[in-house]
Amino acid sequence: MHDAEKALKSLGIRILQPIIDETFPTLKIPDRKTNNIVFDDTINQYVLGPSLSVRDSSNVKHVRSFTQLTWAAAFAKELIQASRTSSLRDLYYSAEAFGINFNNQSESDRIVTDLECLTGLPRESLGIYPEEHSSIYGKVKMRYTVSGYEGKEIDLTVSPDGLPIGPALMTAEPIDSEAKIVLAVESGGMFSRLIETRAWDRFSAVLVQLGGQPPRATRRLMRNLHTSLELPVYIFTDGDPWGMHIAKVITSGSANAAHIKDLTIPSAKWIGVTPEDITEYALPTESMNNADLKRLDELSRDVRYNDPVWQSHIHRFKQMRSKAEQQAFSRHGMDYVVDTYLSDKLL
Amino acid sequence: MHDAEKALKSLGIRILQPIIDETFPTLKIPDRKTNNIVFDDTINQYVLGPSLSVRDSSNVKHVRSFTQLTWAAAFAKELIQASRTSSLRDLYYSAEAFGINFNNQSESDRIVTDLECLTGLPRESLGIYPEEHSSIYGKVKMRYTVSGYEGKEIDLTVSPDGLPIGPALMTAEPIDSEAKIVLAVESGGMFSRLIETRAWDRFSAVLVQLGGQPPRATRRLMRNLHTSLELPVYIFTDGDPWGMHIAKVITSGSANAAHIKDLTIPSAKWIGVTPEDITEYALPTESMNNADLKRLDELSRDVRYNDPVWQSHIHRFKQMRSKAEQQAFSRHGMDYVVDTYLSDKLL
Repeated sequence: MHDAEKALKSLGIRILQPIIDETFPTLKIPDRKTNNIVFDDTINQYVLGPSLSVRDSSNVKHVRSFTQLTWAAAFAKELIQASRTSSLRDLYYSAEAFGINFNNQSESDRIVTDLECLTGLPRESLGIYPEEHSSIYGKVKMRYTVSGYEGKEIDLTVSPDGLPIGPALMTAEPIDSEAKIVLAVESGGMFSRLIETRAWDRFSAVLVQLGGQPPRATRRLMRNLHTSLELPVYIFTDGDPWGMHIAKVITSGSANAAHIKDLTIPSAKWIGVTPEDITEYALPTESMNNADLKRLDELSRDVRYNDPVWQSHIHRFKQMRSKAEQQAFSRHGMDYVVDTYLSDKLL
Repeated sequence: MHDAEKALKSLGIRILQPIIDETFPTLKIPDRKTNNIVFDDTINQYVLGPSLSVRDSSNVKHVRSFTQLTWAAAFAKELIQASRTSSLRDLYYSAEAFGINFNNQSESDRIVTDLECLTGLPRESLGIYPEEHSSIYGKVKMRYTVSGYEGKEIDLTVSPDGLPIGPALMTAEPIDSEAKIVLAVESGGMFSRLIETRAWDRFSAVLVQLGGQPPRATRRLMRNLHTSLELPVYIFTDGDPWGMHIAKVITSGSANAAHIKDLTIPSAKWIGVTPEDITEYALPTESMNNADLKRLDELSRDVRYNDPVWQSHIHRFKQMRSKAEQQAFSRHGMDYVVDTYLSDKLL
């Protein structure tokens, strides 16, 4: 049986057995309040502490969320058994068919997170996905596991526009790679540039387009390539607090996903654009606005940035009060970013 | 020689010849001011009127934009000759390498539009793309024309997550199709649902995910499938003024793109969600907000909506003052949208 089916079945028994025994079922869910989210230095990521919150079906105040949660688990079971997937939005609307009421999608999203905590499985394993996709391109062969495509292989260079990282690719198995590294880039423009300049060939890289903070499915696929094919991961973002933090979430995770295991890549390396790069490569800059400066202050107090190297990046940004996009290398010509910058950083 | 190269060369001669003749070059650009954008009833789309605006290089006020335009043309020539593409953002940054100054990306985007008007070619033919992509999936074979992939064929069912409509797919040639229609859907969630329920097989449809108002490349690819493979086009959006207008722009174009030819599909059909569908299929609704109602007022006066059928949609929406998303069909169960709604509309 599928891991997710097992987890859902065991959850079902935890609810059903008390009813058979003529008592009210209760569920203990790892608590996601701020004071129960702790940073684990040894694994360098956020995890949940020992505190549990109890949902007691005999407590009238808990009945609503208890029912919603039970329905979400039943819905996930249906998805898995029918080899289907659902977007978070779809799940919200589907509830109506069963007389389950959610005030809005935030409420149903929260219940899905409860279900993740209870089962210890990410929503993607339960067939539930957000709508956004990022893309991938490079010399890797994957084998699909989704229904209708089981066993079919795909070469990630099949489409020169890249492939979207959707439910099918996220659950596919990496089987073979001529690539030596994973190179994740923030913007779609840079991703296209690196494909058409054959930078993937030159640096033996699998290219991943993050599109800002990447969906968890993308982080999971990168981690999968990292662990099963032993490819080191490099991250190339805009030179600003937001770009830097994209890299940080890939290495050390986020408080939001503290209940999800196997999502971080501690050894992933942020190659830039660092504040030093902005000076060294004479990039055109923009002044930081108040939101940028406020964000730097927050990051300087963030436990994930305790390391002196990261603190010095923050310090330099604060001194410079300016930022640069990864597209800014184009000022030196179309191929400069590959011929000079990435060659300096990767070769 | 490539059409775009020819157009750029002819533009070059128009600039160079006067200089050789020792006079100042001038350029006449079709005027994009509101009063020169007219709706052509015979072809059912916006076109530019006869008014021209003159850029005179002997006029000091015109020198800046004249220079920017000349540079953009030179940059496009370089892209085409090197078989490269550039995002609009990249173009903005690339200008610095040549000492060309743009105050911001809006200014460089506007110059790219000038270049489209002058050459009569869409920016995509000049190698210039926006960053957004939509996706496609279905039983169609295309042959790539981009460098490195010339002559390679791709089956649009190769990836169960769909394929992004990027520079490579947009310029590929449709060579064969088992599909009988194009079915364009607004949201990524619906696109995934239709793939995994094999709706593409049931309705013999090529599925296109629009992702809101689609990029022009997506409209062009749909039109290409429509004209070269004779596939009729159906559009399935949210049931609100914004969704309805996505369909309208596909059929009749937009004022913004009045200078671009061969982009509309006059025979494309909006299947819904119509206001009647909301009642008939008992969909969960939300109340329209002020922005929705204001938009309906604008559309009721829009020349593209002169047809009585469209006016009656607007009228019904105004009466109902409510809207529904295409995901709302999920209230009747996961497969209802395919088994009932789309079957009613397409079979």
